[in-house]
Amino acid sequence: MRKQKVSSAVIRRLPRYYRHLNELHLSGTVRISSSALGKSMGLTASQIRQDLSCFGEFGQQGYGYNVEKLRGEISDILGMNSGHTAVVLGAGNLGRALIENFHFELSGFHLAAAFDVAPGIVGTVMSGVPIYHIDTLEGYLAGHPTSVGVLTVPRRVAAETAARLVAGGVRGLWNFTNIELDLRGSDVVVENVHFADSLLALSYMISE
Amino acid sequence: MRKQKVSSAVIRRLPRYYRHLNELHLSGTVRISSSALGKSMGLTASQIRQDLSCFGEFGQQGYGYNVEKLRGEISDILGMNSGHTAVVLGAGNLGRALIENFHFELSGFHLAAAFDVAPGIVGTVMSGVPIYHIDTLEGYLAGHPTSVGVLTVPRRVAAETAARLVAGGVRGLWNFTNIELDLRGSDVVVENVHFADSLLALSYMISE
Repeated sequence: MRKQKVSSAVIRRLPRYYRHLNELHLSGTVRISSSALGKSMGLTASQIRQDLSCFGEFGQQGYGYNVEKLRGEISDILGMNSGHTAVVLGAGNLGRALIENFHFELSGFHLAAAFDVAPGIVGTVMSGVPIYHIDTLEGYLAGHPTSVGVLTVPRRVAAETAARLVAGGVRGLWNFTNIELDLRGSDVVVENVHFADSLLALSYMISE
Repeated sequence: MRKQKVSSAVIRRLPRYYRHLNELHLSGTVRISSSALGKSMGLTASQIRQDLSCFGEFGQQGYGYNVEKLRGEISDILGMNSGHTAVVLGAGNLGRALIENFHFELSGFHLAAAFDVAPGIVGTVMSGVPIYHIDTLEGYLAGHPTSVGVLTVPRRVAAETAARLVAGGVRGLWNFTNIELDLRGSDVVVENVHFADSLLALSYMISE
């Protein structure tokens, strides 16, 4: 069903489509027109039709979209029903915030384990997630094929930890370290979370 | 110098321009052509010229851009030299991660204080930032005009805390709570950090 190369702008909008459709579904909305969906997302109706046309035929002339069906189709496109797994590297403040408060399962991920070096943390269980010593990472990955490594380690060990995850066969890195990872020669995808970019956009908007 | 309405796509790219120019400057690069800058950012030269033309005339035909000068101009446009201040609401895992590890000053912000309710935290100083009781927020804001409130409180108190910040005169909210804040009737800008959108984009990319 998926067609050719999809632009990164469309990829960035897909999670927002999912989020809005999920909210509509939870609020009991059964169907919605592309113009109404667009209005709630700050997009035009034609933009929405064009975005979705990258993936096939959705909606019906004169009816609009069935909210639950489109939500399901977008969750499939996003890979939310693919049984993805994740491990967190570094159970410090940020790692702990993600383990305890971020709902990986709502994005289709099972958070299976976390790794750290601190004696007080290794061997404990945090919100149901076992914390192992980083020295056991290779053995763990060999026995538990893992989709994504969540990098919340200190900057000085970011590159080394990323390399170990790549060698262990993960397909993606969710990188919170603010280090640009150089993974040339691998097929591993890196998604960077740049807090500073977000704060600077806010800085711009309050300075206008 | 700033012209009319700038699209949100351009606003989103500005921090990336700043980040790339800063790295170029730190690595000793004095000047760069729009095509070389574009290549390092995955944009075309004409896209870059078009983006920057929203804000005035930069660069010189045949010379390109002076890296340090353009970096300085973009930092001005982003409001990085406006003396912005911030306070963190909620010094739990995520709040603490931001207080201890995020360099607000590199984005032009002074992180002046944080607020929480936990007896073990209130009254302490975390990485130089004093932690006050949330009950003192109104008094603090009255005496210390604050640009941005960083919302890392639990979801159930997110809306109430946002309303108190707005009443206290902040100009922007950096919202990590994953709650859609309804600030109709105020001029306060909300910048949402949606971790799930980022993870879902990664999910898509590893599912291709």
